[in-house]
Amino acid sequence: MPATHLAGPILVIGTGLLGASIGLGLSQRGLSVWLQDPSPTAQTVAQDIGAGRILTTDQRLAPELVVVGAPPDVTAQVVAQALLDYPAATVLDIASVKSSILAALLADDRLDAAALARYVGTHPMAGREKSGPAAARGELFTSVPWVMCSHERTSPESLKTAEAMAIDLGATVSRMKAKEHDESVALISHFPQVASSMIASRLLNAPGHALALAGNGLRDTTRIAASDPKLWIQILSHNAPALVDILHGMRDDLGRLIGTLEEPSAPGALLDLAQLMGEGNAGHARIPGKHGAPPQAFALVTVVVQDRPGQISALLSDIGAAGINVEDLRMEHSAGHQVGLVDVSVIPGRRQELIDVLTALEWKVVQ
Amino acid sequence: MPATHLAGPILVIGTGLLGASIGLGLSQRGLSVWLQDPSPTAQTVAQDIGAGRILTTDQRLAPELVVVGAPPDVTAQVVAQALLDYPAATVLDIASVKSSILAALLADDRLDAAALARYVGTHPMAGREKSGPAAARGELFTSVPWVMCSHERTSPESLKTAEAMAIDLGATVSRMKAKEHDESVALISHFPQVASSMIASRLLNAPGHALALAGNGLRDTTRIAASDPKLWIQILSHNAPALVDILHGMRDDLGRLIGTLEEPSAPGALLDLAQLMGEGNAGHARIPGKHGAPPQAFALVTVVVQDRPGQISALLSDIGAAGINVEDLRMEHSAGHQVGLVDVSVIPGRRQELIDVLTALEWKVVQ
Repeated sequence: MPATHLAGPILVIGTGLLGASIGLGLSQRGLSVWLQDPSPTAQTVAQDIGAGRILTTDQRLAPELVVVGAPPDVTAQVVAQALLDYPAATVLDIASVKSSILAALLADDRLDAAALARYVGTHPMAGREKSGPAAARGELFTSVPWVMCSHERTSPESLKTAEAMAIDLGATVSRMKAKEHDESVALISHFPQVASSMIASRLLNAPGHALALAGNGLRDTTRIAASDPKLWIQILSHNAPALVDILHGMRDDLGRLIGTLEEPSAPGALLDLAQLMGEGNAGHARIPGKHGAPPQAFALVTVVVQDRPGQISALLSDIGAAGINVEDLRMEHSAGHQVGLVDVSVIPGRRQELIDVLTALEWKVVQ
Repeated sequence: MPATHLAGPILVIGTGLLGASIGLGLSQRGLSVWLQDPSPTAQTVAQDIGAGRILTTDQRLAPELVVVGAPPDVTAQVVAQALLDYPAATVLDIASVKSSILAALLADDRLDAAALARYVGTHPMAGREKSGPAAARGELFTSVPWVMCSHERTSPESLKTAEAMAIDLGATVSRMKAKEHDESVALISHFPQVASSMIASRLLNAPGHALALAGNGLRDTTRIAASDPKLWIQILSHNAPALVDILHGMRDDLGRLIGTLEEPSAPGALLDLAQLMGEGNAGHARIPGKHGAPPQAFALVTVVVQDRPGQISALLSDIGAAGINVEDLRMEHSAGHQVGLVDVSVIPGRRQELIDVLTALEWKVVQ
């Protein structure tokens, strides 16, 4: 049983994907976890997968920690009630927006300074392609950044309890003000989401012959356009001010680009396009690499594989046997053939060695 | 030696990545390939990697086919000269834009109907993260869509020759009008490129604490923002009209979104956001799947792996041994830990079997 920094019991209110995953992860660490959800089904599924035990209305509980996993819309209300119901507990929420929830709590007359001191707004940067407690997993937070947004009145003890839970679950903890957090996620999460949705929505009336030419560029830029609208509508509306600022910047860029492309032979037009592409290069280069390392250009080695069971595993088995770590792996999808290309990323210093090893083993390395 | 539908000789004018790759692929099929490039270095590198032999100015050649791999800016001019220099040859180009090149050729007084009959505009949907002949590879076109844009005067023989070359190189051939092609690539390639650049350019002044939270959503939407500006400036300026139409649509969407987010509590605001997300869902769902198959939702199985050599290969080896094909594989990058999650996509019918197999082999499957 992994070590834990908490004593428990823990109460999880809202047993969706994230709440149930927290319950599951903490239960696996031997903590006593209780569950509550307005949906009897969600509650029961969470209990069935081992996330904890359902708390019935007649039971008295004195939790060390209450985790609120409610939708953003109702989070402040559920947090406030938990602060009132459990006067000794630290109460944290895990919603993707923080300022609007904090503002609502600070404005709540029922909450005195002692109650507010026990509240910590947090945000684990985790998610899955699926939602609901059936998709929960205790390892969901492994290596995931988990932001702690303590406010001016948060007590050091409550912050420590919240951080202990995130660390127990394997997350990487950082601290920000609520406003800093909201501006950060507006930029690195909410903005890419709406941009991706806007790119994908242009495909609605696209002819089939155009879509048949789609490559990885289109697939990558639109992957998150498949996200669930229900949750995103709440996130976007709750973080509207921070997101609007960024969208104004994009609208300015887009207006300039349209002006340039409407007169592509005008003086300076090519320079404008060069600037757009150059700024894109420079912005992209600022995204940190794997494990929070500085951005690093890995070297690619491309290998031809047959599209049948065991081919990629055989390839990676040969790479592993050579003691070379695969930093990333990408399959190139394209239409019509049952043979494909696999791009293997390795640190640049080992690229040639990898090519030599694979060639010697009669893999078709393309260079 | 693989079969070929061509007799040769072939002349490749312009030995960058694509031209040299074509020369290499055709040489590997036993054809006689000649090379020409305004850059003596590019020409020599292409010859050194086996793409063909350099054609000196005093040599007489009667090629069956001339492949023009020049930048879009000078493609029409090089094609016209080739049609004049080699009066028996089919001449094709491989630039990413087609209408502007065709228009320039049709307007060229030196070219009569017989000369124009030998021209075929083509576009292989291939590329690499690197450019130049040193990055060339004969397999670059394997499974890649290769569009043939014959025009009204193209002779059936020349179209057949051009298609034979693409098929020889392993590509999947389709036919379109130049305008259809340009509108198609504006939508599925040029538009995602500029959108990705615009997303990434917003990161230029982002604080480090925001970038540290970056996940796969931001990484995916901005990956192609790292593309080489030099080539893209030409592509964008040559396909400006088709691209501008799409950008107008995006500007309308963006304007509406900004209006909605400026008053997120106004009546109908949530409905507007739901519509944006819903259209993104629907547009994304129209992108065809692997091998040109209808879009298919693969089932994901997520496995915890240590980030050290051999782990992923051992995992895939176990999957391969079970006879299950990996349709896609994705490594989840995040900051701070040396343990990660691998998402393995399989056809839905085999998901449970895969989970059972991996669990029995003591892999940590997260569900």
